Amino acid sequence: MPVLHHPSTEEIELVDVLAALGHPVRLEIAQALASGEERFCGEILPDESRSSMTHHWRALRESGVIYQRRSGRKLYLTLRRGDLDVRFPGLLDLVLDHHHRPGAK
Amino acid sequence: MPVLHHPSTEEIELVDVLAALGHPVRLEIAQALASGEERFCGEILPDESRSSMTHHWRALRESGVIYQRRSGRKLYLTLRRGDLDVRFPGLLDLVLDHHHRPGAK
Repeated sequence: MPVLHHPSTEEIELVDVLAALGHPVRLEIAQALASGEERFCGEILPDESRSSMTHHWRALRESGVIYQRRSGRKLYLTLRRGDLDVRFPGLLDLVLDHHHRPGAK
Repeated sequence: MPVLHHPSTEEIELVDVLAALGHPVRLEIAQALASGEERFCGEILPDESRSSMTHHWRALRESGVIYQRRSGRKLYLTLRRGDLDVRFPGLLDLVLDHHHRPGAK
């Protein structure tokens, strides 16, 4: 299986993070990972098609928003909160807090 | 000439703003308007093609990031800082400050 590439903390670029989070499904995924706990990818938005989710995982991983870990045939995901907080202090909290507010989209 | 549609403050959605700013040219435009002053669109990134810029103005306007005013055959642009600060307090400062830092992208 191919190695999953993750940018280093210093390689994470603001414009890529904004583009990754600038999609309703990907914003939802970030929200689902907001607690910081690692989650099995199949648990998150199970009603979306697998190919669409594969595309979104990749956009989030390559921009540096999530970390993907393979274990056997399963993929586990974590939000890279620490790295994002180092690079863009406050951005993630601001985005997740807003998204979480009742009535906010 | 068609009326330029601008979303009202309440209609501005986080995901649309993130998507609009998640592009290097559009981030650059927002930076060029950061002072808050209205600018003639031809002054901003004059080396980019007109059709590409038209696409970017539209993405920024429809998401609620900029206000476009037509005067004769010219378009003038302003950053909707007040509206964005009401909807997503701190987001614009965070994005523009980071982008402005030497070496930051």
